[in-house]
Amino acid sequence: MTLLDRVRSCADYNCEEFYPLLVDGNRVGQVSARNVGNLTDFKSIFEFNRAEIHLRKNIRGFRHRSSAMREVAEKLSSRGLISGWRNELYPVAHKFGVPAIFDIERAAVPFFGFRGYGVHINGWVKVGDDVHMWIGRRSYTKPTGAGELDQIVAGGLPSGINVMDNVIKECQEEANIDALMAKQAVPVGTVSYKTKRKEGLRNDVLFNYDLCLPLDFKPINMDGEVEEFMLWPISKVLREVAKEGVFKFNSALVIIDFLVRHGFIESDCPGYTEIISGLHC
Amino acid sequence: MTLLDRVRSCADYNCEEFYPLLVDGNRVGQVSARNVGNLTDFKSIFEFNRAEIHLRKNIRGFRHRSSAMREVAEKLSSRGLISGWRNELYPVAHKFGVPAIFDIERAAVPFFGFRGYGVHINGWVKVGDDVHMWIGRRSYTKPTGAGELDQIVAGGLPSGINVMDNVIKECQEEANIDALMAKQAVPVGTVSYKTKRKEGLRNDVLFNYDLCLPLDFKPINMDGEVEEFMLWPISKVLREVAKEGVFKFNSALVIIDFLVRHGFIESDCPGYTEIISGLHC
Repeated sequence: MTLLDRVRSCADYNCEEFYPLLVDGNRVGQVSARNVGNLTDFKSIFEFNRAEIHLRKNIRGFRHRSSAMREVAEKLSSRGLISGWRNELYPVAHKFGVPAIFDIERAAVPFFGFRGYGVHINGWVKVGDDVHMWIGRRSYTKPTGAGELDQIVAGGLPSGINVMDNVIKECQEEANIDALMAKQAVPVGTVSYKTKRKEGLRNDVLFNYDLCLPLDFKPINMDGEVEEFMLWPISKVLREVAKEGVFKFNSALVIIDFLVRHGFIESDCPGYTEIISGLHC
Repeated sequence: MTLLDRVRSCADYNCEEFYPLLVDGNRVGQVSARNVGNLTDFKSIFEFNRAEIHLRKNIRGFRHRSSAMREVAEKLSSRGLISGWRNELYPVAHKFGVPAIFDIERAAVPFFGFRGYGVHINGWVKVGDDVHMWIGRRSYTKPTGAGELDQIVAGGLPSGINVMDNVIKECQEEANIDALMAKQAVPVGTVSYKTKRKEGLRNDVLFNYDLCLPLDFKPINMDGEVEEFMLWPISKVLREVAKEGVFKFNSALVIIDFLVRHGFIESDCPGYTEIISGLHC
């Protein structure tokens, strides 16, 4: 029940348990040993070569690849191997900021261990000399982390939108923060992790923002994804985020990064260097 | 000449070019292939086992190990293989915060690739709505990075002092910042890197602090280690830090981390995710 435990729980990854998935010779995903057998039915799409999975060379170009991957994802979903279908496309690329080589339904991303991206906004308030933070409780109907605590605003980064535009969009939908206010969000870095989850491998980079909100601002959820909002003093946030299962696993990392950057964790505290390196796996 | 170039220049490391140095079966250092031949003269101290170097098992306990390592370091120094002797002892441990297994002269640390620790303080000033930063030019007589630019205060973390006490000590010595003011320094995380340098392997973790200084404060160097101080607008810092050879290699990382945390780099900027992961190697 320490911050270091929370960080370590997001690093449950051993590369030997995964098969690399390659496109044009570049590794873009990793499929768990348990899941790889479910891909052998798709011999017209994948080639299996010793310990690697290759997208077949005749499947070329963004459209053709996206439609092949869609076919696979739909079949896996119909067999119950992918759950929580969202009808939201995620780009898959060799690295961030370069053109996608295909896109794929968001719910399928962890099955293949593709790198996912998200935006997370720490909504904080100056209350006298103290810092308070808005915390959201995720809707009980969300496919992941239902009922767990989260940032005031957080969302995946789908195809066709840049990071800042997504911040503005999510701020509106999740907390009724208008564009003028959302644009005050300060980009403050990323956290990244690679960790085994029941849905597969979460291999994500989250873009973190700090947004200082006026004292009289009250968030209102517009899209049904947030159960309730709470404004907590930072001392309570620090205490709760250390506990297991209170915050969503990756939202906890975003909070810990906030606590580090704002000096709420002393550098002489045990595990300080490991906490920070664990935020950037 | 980009921030990403500066970060990449601190990641010039290929593990195959180094021989692990182990104590009690734990790797604590890495010696370059070029340097390893110089250790074969010390057969009573080291045992060479395939691709590994072991401190001999009969050399036990902090004192005995420290004196054996001192003997080696002094001989290497007398042969010109270690330069810039400082008469400053660094602790070597299996990880940060646990008791040291021995200590060793600071100048010898990179030869053995031991992990080094330092404190770096970003001294910044609010000038209206703008941020300015105090920059120090390192003395032309320093053994490393002579004449290069640096934080207002930066120093290694020697044996027997904790991180915050070292911040207070270095603030006084390097910039005449008194203890009351130094205690306002906010711990904001670390940067870490592993990179080949002419002195060996720099394998460091730097504890970063932000210190907001009053507008009328003027730093005065007390220990002869700083040539001059300059107060620069952050736009100039951003421009200069991207250039090669202007800032000391690791001080550049500390500045880039400051720029990221304070939102001076947009998250949609090319290389953003790689810049950040490169600050935490």
